[in-house]
Amino acid sequence: MTNSDVTVLGLGQMGSALAAALLRAGHQTTVWNRTAAKATALAAEGAQVAATAAQAQAASPVIIACVLDYPALHEILDPAALAGRTLVNLTSGSPEQARETAAWAAGHGIGYLDGGIMITPPGISNPASMLLYSGPRTAFTDTGKLLSAFGEAIYLGADPGVASLYDTALLGIMWASMTGWLHAAALVTADGATAAEFTPLAIRWLGDVSGFVRAYAQQVDERAYPGFDATIDVQAATIEHLVHASEVRGIDAALPKLLRDYAKRAVAQGHGGDGWARVIELLRAA
Amino acid sequence: MTNSDVTVLGLGQMGSALAAALLRAGHQTTVWNRTAAKATALAAEGAQVAATAAQAQAASPVIIACVLDYPALHEILDPAALAGRTLVNLTSGSPEQARETAAWAAGHGIGYLDGGIMITPPGISNPASMLLYSGPRTAFTDTGKLLSAFGEAIYLGADPGVASLYDTALLGIMWASMTGWLHAAALVTADGATAAEFTPLAIRWLGDVSGFVRAYAQQVDERAYPGFDATIDVQAATIEHLVHASEVRGIDAALPKLLRDYAKRAVAQGHGGDGWARVIELLRAA
Repeated sequence: MTNSDVTVLGLGQMGSALAAALLRAGHQTTVWNRTAAKATALAAEGAQVAATAAQAQAASPVIIACVLDYPALHEILDPAALAGRTLVNLTSGSPEQARETAAWAAGHGIGYLDGGIMITPPGISNPASMLLYSGPRTAFTDTGKLLSAFGEAIYLGADPGVASLYDTALLGIMWASMTGWLHAAALVTADGATAAEFTPLAIRWLGDVSGFVRAYAQQVDERAYPGFDATIDVQAATIEHLVHASEVRGIDAALPKLLRDYAKRAVAQGHGGDGWARVIELLRAA
Repeated sequence: MTNSDVTVLGLGQMGSALAAALLRAGHQTTVWNRTAAKATALAAEGAQVAATAAQAQAASPVIIACVLDYPALHEILDPAALAGRTLVNLTSGSPEQARETAAWAAGHGIGYLDGGIMITPPGISNPASMLLYSGPRTAFTDTGKLLSAFGEAIYLGADPGVASLYDTALLGIMWASMTGWLHAAALVTADGATAAEFTPLAIRWLGDVSGFVRAYAQQVDERAYPGFDATIDVQAATIEHLVHASEVRGIDAALPKLLRDYAKRAVAQGHGGDGWARVIELLRAA
């Protein structure tokens, strides 16, 4: 027997934002956190506060978990309380951990959907925010109305590990791009420009880079990398300017040197006439 | 005495595209290339072909140079032929090389504008293409009508090295972002997705990353990096999933490990509560 629409397990910054979004959307929401004090603000907004994790899992047909990590998750999951319910797991982890937990849930008659949240807590409830889900399609359709409170819910397929894999892969793009931008900002500010002057051009340029990436996606799938626009040969030469410009300004050149190393290896393998997308073959051959 | 509007020195893929754009825009154009055969197609479109580099430089009030590198440039520049004219130098090189050439030009009574072309040859003539220029403002305003044939002409100020520095810095962002995307594509394709499926999400995500970068620009200029949205502490933990997911799939993890190293060093220095923009201080302290 349940007495609320949805339960949120874990009330860190993200879990609290999720619970607040559900309340704002008009859903009866039960919350639980190991440290009960974190539930106070949500209780004032109308959340029911469960006394134990098991009671919280029994209280609703859909249980959303967003805790520190998988060990913390497995400590609180209660198969008896969850039986017949759907667990939406938004805990950060590896695809392998997501798949193991999905198998565990299936073995206990628990519906399972895994998710990755591609936004920081302040972005929850913004319809433009991107949340990725994977697992059985029924688990997604059954919970879709609740999940739409958080942002755009994007379904990636039945493999419960895919949402986590995409999450990790996209974060990797973020760290690489942000660090590339920080390196660029270090260069131009060394010569007196401000990051505020440079960044609008950098953002416009990232839009152009998105266009290059769109064209290269087909090359990656076909595993053929014709250098129709810019060859690695030419880029291996221009990348030297980047290393040099870094070094003469006393700026760490580890990132440009790593990129130069990929270019040099592609050239050494006889692929200098290919485009940059050829580098994926070096990554795959590790 | 001149007999054409503009001269293009160097008819590689890019120089040929520039000359063709000038001809299409209705400008009387003189061309020269060390290997004369490359001028044949342009001659058919109406270009005057100069017999020598010096004659080409004497033929027009504006000389656009786009050759392999600075040694090749200095071999052909003729101060007697260029005196009283404006040299627009689109040869790739370092900011230092641009500044030296600007000083050389000033010493010979030659106007000088330096430029960086942020597009491959097929993008020349597209009004959305970004071309960066720096040097004395008069050199930019005097040549603006000709330069508008190539795309959007963006003036970055009087320092002739700035266009080259921005060019290099922006290319660094491109290589970092594209390699981050290739690494992500290697991850998701290892589990059966296609790059074509993944890339639209990656491109949308790059738009989100642009928003993060916009917010961080102010932090970089203020040298204060409050972790208002996501702390390095949290990211240092999630970046481990990226390294792990790479290694279990046999994918080169050098890029994630470099990024992890920056995160760990920032944490070790007591800046784990800051946001990712803090990493610029590690780059500057090389």
